[in-house]
Amino acid sequence: MSIYETILRRRSIRRYTQQPIEPEKIELLLKAAMAAPTARNQQPWEFIIVDDTIRREKLSRSHSAAGFLKEAPLGIVVCGNLQRCADDITQEYWIQDCSAAITIMQIAAVELELGSCWIGTHPRTERIALIKKVLALPEIIQPLGILSIGYPDEIKKPRTQFTKTYVHHNSW
Amino acid sequence: MSIYETILRRRSIRRYTQQPIEPEKIELLLKAAMAAPTARNQQPWEFIIVDDTIRREKLSRSHSAAGFLKEAPLGIVVCGNLQRCADDITQEYWIQDCSAAITIMQIAAVELELGSCWIGTHPRTERIALIKKVLALPEIIQPLGILSIGYPDEIKKPRTQFTKTYVHHNSW
Repeated sequence: MSIYETILRRRSIRRYTQQPIEPEKIELLLKAAMAAPTARNQQPWEFIIVDDTIRREKLSRSHSAAGFLKEAPLGIVVCGNLQRCADDITQEYWIQDCSAAITIMQIAAVELELGSCWIGTHPRTERIALIKKVLALPEIIQPLGILSIGYPDEIKKPRTQFTKTYVHHNSW
Repeated sequence: MSIYETILRRRSIRRYTQQPIEPEKIELLLKAAMAAPTARNQQPWEFIIVDDTIRREKLSRSHSAAGFLKEAPLGIVVCGNLQRCADDITQEYWIQDCSAAITIMQIAAVELELGSCWIGTHPRTERIALIKKVLALPEIIQPLGILSIGYPDEIKKPRTQFTKTYVHHNSW
């Protein structure tokens, strides 16, 4: 399978079998995530692996459309560590850096025969507050989003949503 | 080459040969980018392909460490279209959505034997202003970052920056 095909096969998968995910696969996902680029190589990320059912159920309430998280064998909450952002100006880059890490895990998951769905958190304050409470996150740790992961129990066709009018040449 | 190996081979490449990039490869990159997930599938992105030397030179001045952009055969400026964000609350998701698109292009580039570097723009107001001027971007079009792309003229070893202390289990 080529990288390009893999990228097109990355779809938002919300139904999973109950098969647990092998620890080696979780480690591969994390190694892939931490190969993502970060602004000034600050690596301002933290990863909370949530396999505890009760916590996943609580986290699933952070989002009106995230009920499926409690059925997923695994959630990875990707957070920014504001203490590892060099200064006020670069501080906001943690959002882009953590987004890169989530994206890369989603691509890596396809090769591992796993499906995933990116559940948006930041900047919705009520979702952030709930997640911080459930995971006992300190003030400087900000959740960006949750990745639900599992062996897929639904099939979606590969696709791009390529739209020619979104491409411009040298100027608007 | 496995997806995982490709992800580890994605390094920030800042030196390029003068070989131009085939139009088919540019199209593949854009198709890959628009296979990225977006919040509520709003696809709030716009891609400005910059192969014009004068404009690339001007864009390279947007960033103190982006001089290499003028030597790259290509820059792709990834922007958010705020008009395609459904409401005030989801509006900020364009940052995450466009970050996913940039990340995916970087991974796809590796397979095409291309190197790339993500040049940060948002949220630095002076960089945003310069890019908007050079590319004649309307008010609602916000540049997130620039991806410089070309055939690599430097070799970097594959790597992950995996750090065990950044991984937590079920709670902080």
